[in-house]
Amino acid sequence: MLEKIQKMLTIRSSSVRELLAEALGMYVLMVLGLSSVAQVVLGKGEFGQYLSINLGFGIGVTMGIHAAGGISGAHLNAAITLTHCIFGNLPWRKLPAYLLGQFLGSFLGAATVFGLYYEALYDYTKGNFTVTGPTGTASIFSTYPSPYMSLSGSFFTEFMATVMLFLGILVIHDEKNNGALKGTQALLTGILVLGIGMGMGMNTGYAINPSRDLPPRIFTAIAGWGVDVFRAGNYWWWVPLVAPTLGSLAGGLIYKLLIDIHNQPVLERGNEKGQTVIESSTL
Amino acid sequence: MLEKIQKMLTIRSSSVRELLAEALGMYVLMVLGLSSVAQVVLGKGEFGQYLSINLGFGIGVTMGIHAAGGISGAHLNAAITLTHCIFGNLPWRKLPAYLLGQFLGSFLGAATVFGLYYEALYDYTKGNFTVTGPTGTASIFSTYPSPYMSLSGSFFTEFMATVMLFLGILVIHDEKNNGALKGTQALLTGILVLGIGMGMGMNTGYAINPSRDLPPRIFTAIAGWGVDVFRAGNYWWWVPLVAPTLGSLAGGLIYKLLIDIHNQPVLERGNEKGQTVIESSTL
Amino acid sequence: MLEKIQKMLTIRSSSVRELLAEALGMYVLMVLGLSSVAQVVLGKGEFGQYLSINLGFGIGVTMGIHAAGGISGAHLNAAITLTHCIFGNLPWRKLPAYLLGQFLGSFLGAATVFGLYYEALYDYTKGNFTVTGPTGTASIFSTYPSPYMSLSGSFFTEFMATVMLFLGILVIHDEKNNGALKGTQALLTGILVLGIGMGMGMNTGYAINPSRDLPPRIFTAIAGWGVDVFRAGNYWWWVPLVAPTLGSLAGGLIYKLLIDIHNQPVLERGNEKGQTVIESSTL
Amino acid sequence: MLEKIQKMLTIRSSSVRELLAEALGMYVLMVLGLSSVAQVVLGKGEFGQYLSINLGFGIGVTMGIHAAGGISGAHLNAAITLTHCIFGNLPWRKLPAYLLGQFLGSFLGAATVFGLYYEALYDYTKGNFTVTGPTGTASIFSTYPSPYMSLSGSFFTEFMATVMLFLGILVIHDEKNNGALKGTQALLTGILVLGIGMGMGMNTGYAINPSRDLPPRIFTAIAGWGVDVFRAGNYWWWVPLVAPTLGSLAGGLIYKLLIDIHNQPVLERGNEKGQTVIESSTL
Repeated sequence: MLEKIQKMLTIRSSSVRELLAEALGMYVLMVLGLSSVAQVVLGKGEFGQYLSINLGFGIGVTMGIHAAGGISGAHLNAAITLTHCIFGNLPWRKLPAYLLGQFLGSFLGAATVFGLYYEALYDYTKGNFTVTGPTGTASIFSTYPSPYMSLSGSFFTEFMATVMLFLGILVIHDEKNNGALKGTQALLTGILVLGIGMGMGMNTGYAINPSRDLPPRIFTAIAGWGVDVFRAGNYWWWVPLVAPTLGSLAGGLIYKLLIDIHNQPVLERGNEKGQTVIESSTL
Repeated sequence: MLEKIQKMLTIRSSSVRELLAEALGMYVLMVLGLSSVAQVVLGKGEFGQYLSINLGFGIGVTMGIHAAGGISGAHLNAAITLTHCIFGNLPWRKLPAYLLGQFLGSFLGAATVFGLYYEALYDYTKGNFTVTGPTGTASIFSTYPSPYMSLSGSFFTEFMATVMLFLGILVIHDEKNNGALKGTQALLTGILVLGIGMGMGMNTGYAINPSRDLPPRIFTAIAGWGVDVFRAGNYWWWVPLVAPTLGSLAGGLIYKLLIDIHNQPVLERGNEKGQTVIESSTL
Repeated sequence: MLEKIQKMLTIRSSSVRELLAEALGMYVLMVLGLSSVAQVVLGKGEFGQYLSINLGFGIGVTMGIHAAGGISGAHLNAAITLTHCIFGNLPWRKLPAYLLGQFLGSFLGAATVFGLYYEALYDYTKGNFTVTGPTGTASIFSTYPSPYMSLSGSFFTEFMATVMLFLGILVIHDEKNNGALKGTQALLTGILVLGIGMGMGMNTGYAINPSRDLPPRIFTAIAGWGVDVFRAGNYWWWVPLVAPTLGSLAGGLIYKLLIDIHNQPVLERGNEKGQTVIESSTL
Repeated sequence: MLEKIQKMLTIRSSSVRELLAEALGMYVLMVLGLSSVAQVVLGKGEFGQYLSINLGFGIGVTMGIHAAGGISGAHLNAAITLTHCIFGNLPWRKLPAYLLGQFLGSFLGAATVFGLYYEALYDYTKGNFTVTGPTGTASIFSTYPSPYMSLSGSFFTEFMATVMLFLGILVIHDEKNNGALKGTQALLTGILVLGIGMGMGMNTGYAINPSRDLPPRIFTAIAGWGVDVFRAGNYWWWVPLVAPTLGSLAGGLIYKLLIDIHNQPVLERGNEKGQTVIESSTL
């Protein structure tokens, strides 16, 4: 009988399965990531510092990739999904399921962290949820630029940080070049995100991902912070949607032009490559 | 002769061997974990901050899994052992040996850390061991909710944190999906626990494990902190027993329903999966 | 048609491909590394501390090696390239392409970080870019010795730190000895650089690499800091060029003399070695 | 001709090769470890905190094991070498070469760090090298107990910390149980040492190794700190020699009795074990 139920519940559609995988992976990423921001902000420095936000998102990415990787490839980022469609690696008809899954997981992740930290939020803000000011808390959920930033500077930061993100993902996985060992790539991608946060997080909060930024922003608009979450930073909200998409595309192009197209096929120049690699590390 | 002694000492019962493995693994986990809390609390911030508690438990989990993994599977957590029984992966008759081993190891770990830090405890408290107050030290051994938390909020935190724990463990080990490389899974599980501590530790101290919480609480009740360890936090002590068990079950169900039951068997769809994974990381 | 364009763009010259690989790898290293310094300096401690600089360069090295390793061997360091030429592992005629690539990548990396943090720099310095003083910012880009250091002491620090760097790289990659698992060596090299920064960074800023230090110094001279970047620290600028080169050579010689020449060939003494290794870790 | 010189320099004696390997590995460990202490103490918290000492020694251990592992097994610790002799894994006649190598490497490592930080030491102490007091600096090189510690408490701390160290090393390497992946064991051992330092470092400075503690102590006695380095802490200097040796022995016995002797041979119970391991991580 159990087997019958199991069979009944089994989904054969690869689109639905990919949607579910992206949703779960994104949920894991967001719960681990956003909760680490909450703990730093609401804990007033006693339960973590900026580094733990960087670590939190890094570990979230690693675990999210483990969760979704075998089903959907674990994009967990609308900019990367779009890039794969444009480069012809993902059929356009699959785009909606990927984006829907990512947005669903991200929204539910934000809601979960809101639930987890509702009492701490209340204690910290006395129930007054604001975007800015001394007890501003919207940045727990979505990114906001620092006060000294212009919109174009913010745009460039998000663009560049996503160039680095996608470049890094490509080199970690490129088996024709010098990729990381299979089964450790999720960890390395997390380490990459850790590095991006420690170096390119101060200006804009390193959204580098529309799926990480927009759904929690919508959530906060509903949950008590109001439309200010869209007005803040000179209506900055659209930047984490557009800049990462262009950055991801640029990162892919850079890698293709500088390395990848000259490096084909593997078999032909296997020996030569091996030799060069050895040169670099032994005497 | 040495061989004779060795033969005499050799235990053949798999239950006893599993009990010993869970006890040793749990002991390693607890000594590394609790001692890092002691060092932060008693060292007044000079010998580590909150991050080192998160790292201490993470490393403890990694080492505990290496210690017990080949014999008992290294549950090191009564909630996970129970979940495996309920899901039919562990015979119910094995439950008592697992729990006994875990509780024994945890109790002895707490006693060891008490011994290690007895002089520092005395120096810090002037011999007055209290649960709360400016020199409260019971939280070195067991978890207590933050003052702003309600019992239901605490319950939800422990539930969710354990959902994330068991979800993470499953995805790290799922070879049909995108698990971590064999022989690195203990490390990844430690990193998962590090992430949970940095994101979901502030509310309740992230027990996420009855075997980590109850035996040290009993130890502190005996060792000088008295029955207050059970009274504190509105009699919170039972929450780290019940909430993680439900959370672990929920985490298992979520993964089964969203990913696992649609992902069978491996052989049939091996190619398709491989292809999708590649899509996500190369151009 | 796309294939035709691709063919047209494909470079067959291995020198140009190596130049591009070193440039990209170096760029990745420098953007991740320098941006982490910028975030610590300009963020006034709120967005990272000294440790995140160490982590930033470590992660930069790891990602840079993944980016260039399969093409050029990922030297990413003129001292190491020179050492390989002297030890006969790299033909001298390849030297210019390697150095040019490294310098190009490093210069562009510095320019990118300048662009990323231009507004924060302006906010922090009120537009007055100085090498020293309370709002000195040149050290975001290049290294400068601490005030208490003499030139000879600085020289020795850079020499020793590069001895450790190259020694570490050799032992991580030596398959005849006890190297790291293939595919994890880039990570381990990053961890090595992390360790060097935490232990040998205070005196001189651990340049340990002419390609990391000179191009950003030239960039800052042009971008507004002026010739002071060469005058500072008693004209220290040449030390990060010479001392690391000698250190790298010394590190190579030490390893060759103490370990490597006595350890040949693998096949002959494979068994014995295996046995000894096991001794160290099992009972 | 080069080949002739090489042949001339090649050492065939395995004892000398092991001595050199232990010396180099220990040197790497000590330079990375001690320099991280120097940077924390002399940098007054601006160039690292207690965590970077823990990381410094962890990374030092990892790199030291990579340096010596293939030749000598990388004991890098007199207590572990002695334990291997007692357990019959290393012939007693090899003991002197191992100890001599370790002590030599450790002494030279301390001398190197003294050289590296001579100017910073002078700047910090005004040339007055003392063991205790506000500008005490001897603890950069050797370990000293905290003021609140008794000698017996210190002994117990060093004993227990070394129990954990050797237990951890054994479980990381035990292929019959659940060891770490080959080629990642050096990293895991470093992580173990990181954990020990974060949890058991406050009382006594976690020597856990005679070869790490005595040679630098002798060096400081000569280099200007005088005989106080032996008098301090109620003549504590012998504790890091004796307690770690007993701790290492105890750790080995505990593992043998609780796990290892019941777990032989592999082949016989391979299947059952595999099954149990899977139980713990999949549903």
